Amino acid sequence: AAVMTPILLNHMGNEENEYINEQVQVKNPNLDTMEEDILYHFSLSTKTHNLPEMFGDIKFVCVGGSANRMKAFAQFIHQELKLPGNPGDIKDICEGTDRYCMYKVGPVLSISHGMGVPSISIMLHELIKLLHHAQCCDVVLFRLGTSGGVGLAPGTVVITEKAVDYSFRPQFEQVVLGKVITRNTELDEGVANELLQCSSELQTFPTVIGNTMCTHDFYEGQGRLDGALCSFSQEEKLEYLRKAYEAGVRNIEMESTVFAAMCRVCGLKGAVVCVALLNRFEGDQITSSHDVLVEYQQRPQILVAHFIKKRLGYII
Amino acid sequence: AAVMTPILLNHMGNEENEYINEQVQVKNPNLDTMEEDILYHFSLSTKTHNLPEMFGDIKFVCVGGSANRMKAFAQFIHQELKLPGNPGDIKDICEGTDRYCMYKVGPVLSISHGMGVPSISIMLHELIKLLHHAQCCDVVLFRLGTSGGVGLAPGTVVITEKAVDYSFRPQFEQVVLGKVITRNTELDEGVANELLQCSSELQTFPTVIGNTMCTHDFYEGQGRLDGALCSFSQEEKLEYLRKAYEAGVRNIEMESTVFAAMCRVCGLKGAVVCVALLNRFEGDQITSSHDVLVEYQQRPQILVAHFIKKRLGYII
Repeated sequence: AAVMTPILLNHMGNEENEYINEQVQVKNPNLDTMEEDILYHFSLSTKTHNLPEMFGDIKFVCVGGSANRMKAFAQFIHQELKLPGNPGDIKDICEGTDRYCMYKVGPVLSISHGMGVPSISIMLHELIKLLHHAQCCDVVLFRLGTSGGVGLAPGTVVITEKAVDYSFRPQFEQVVLGKVITRNTELDEGVANELLQCSSELQTFPTVIGNTMCTHDFYEGQGRLDGALCSFSQEEKLEYLRKAYEAGVRNIEMESTVFAAMCRVCGLKGAVVCVALLNRFEGDQITSSHDVLVEYQQRPQILVAHFIKKRLGYII
Repeated sequence: AAVMTPILLNHMGNEENEYINEQVQVKNPNLDTMEEDILYHFSLSTKTHNLPEMFGDIKFVCVGGSANRMKAFAQFIHQELKLPGNPGDIKDICEGTDRYCMYKVGPVLSISHGMGVPSISIMLHELIKLLHHAQCCDVVLFRLGTSGGVGLAPGTVVITEKAVDYSFRPQFEQVVLGKVITRNTELDEGVANELLQCSSELQTFPTVIGNTMCTHDFYEGQGRLDGALCSFSQEEKLEYLRKAYEAGVRNIEMESTVFAAMCRVCGLKGAVVCVALLNRFEGDQITSSHDVLVEYQQRPQILVAHFIKKRLGYII
């Protein structure tokens, strides 16, 4: 592994991550003694693939639930970065499995993670190991998602300040060998502010910074009245959403707490950027037309593409 | 909705489900007053699709994590039931979305659910609503999966007796409006025994009945030493697995508790049938060859296909 001298930056808010040229950190001493590491859900391995050659230049990793959407993002960033070749020729690096899709476009990796904390958690473990094996430095990780808005107009983009649980606490409960431990879920303040700045430069859609509530289901846990099971009233639902709003929650999705927790533990700068598809104070069902939903889902992509272009010097 | 007279059966072990001609039960009074129900993650709706016509004859629903595997199962059951037409022509009913795939083959529905409790939970809510809207009766629901074995030879098939949590308790914790409630996760004893009988008729692979531990991640929660994060020793891992074995756990996967809980609440007979890809006492990485893994993954399909053929009178 190339040894880099860390250089202290004085304008970053996060005291733990104030270095550039920082390699992605795994927190597992066993990995260095393994002859082979099979990244099973990516269908990649340290023996069968030259990970430093394939991934060593990665600086931005963008993840999102839907495989089609992350393929579309890869094609979009290919165009935005004016890279040679045809965006339509982009190949799924994980074609040996259907668990996740992965596309590489210059220094940008685009990966799907499915729905929910367990699904993204498997992907993050294997992604962090991949970045470690590939000796990647100074990687910024983005989750680009969809969400339910809390008191926001549909189409508003939310940049997450803190990912919070069902009790609005900024923590993630992880079970380790049958014991529950708690991890912090604050995200990188510098990246969040830089994203908000990008939004004010673009001036094409409303963007806010707020807390994001992460739940483990879409219906009962988010207070929806339209699931197969529902034991509460409309008024009880609205009361829960009002409490969430008072705690600073502006949107609800299903992956942000474990994303934030793993970024912090592994020294990765991470950001969560989700568009609100509806205002949960006004309903539960997603009734917007297909075309409107497609346009909404491009908004986090446009914002993060702008961030990447600025960082790479395409926009001064 | 057709009204059927429930007929009491006297040979079933589950006192709550002792009826035939029983319609799938949603537990949500709001659904009957909704003008339209959009099953968002299936890209289906009661207004745009005639659900009773499309799905009214469904008797068996088979679900599994991988979209490719559930398509292969649909093609396999098409051949096994000797239905007219080309198995290769099977169409994804959920082609308007990439969240889940769904295939209908005669009275059998095959659906993918992704990885983890939240992902399968969304699918189950929308599936149970679909079966309700379609006025389906006497449906048996199977999860066909892969898992890590606990003290079993790779390739062994486990039929789940109880789905248990990380503390080996047969319960599922569901958050409803910020409060944790607990649901029972015992599965249908009659269907499990019938599946074991099928296995002894087939005599092609080892099959056991045992408890299945459901975790919310693949690495730390299952005691793997090879994740991006690992803070415990090999000995601590083995001690946890030994305790699991003593509690009757024979395999570990990531969906069974919510599957069992929702089946019970909605009066659906459910079974979980997973093949063990490795013996966790011997390692963490899945090192078997692609061909061996493909053959293992067919085993739950072969078992459930035999069950379906017996129930339909193809095998006497």
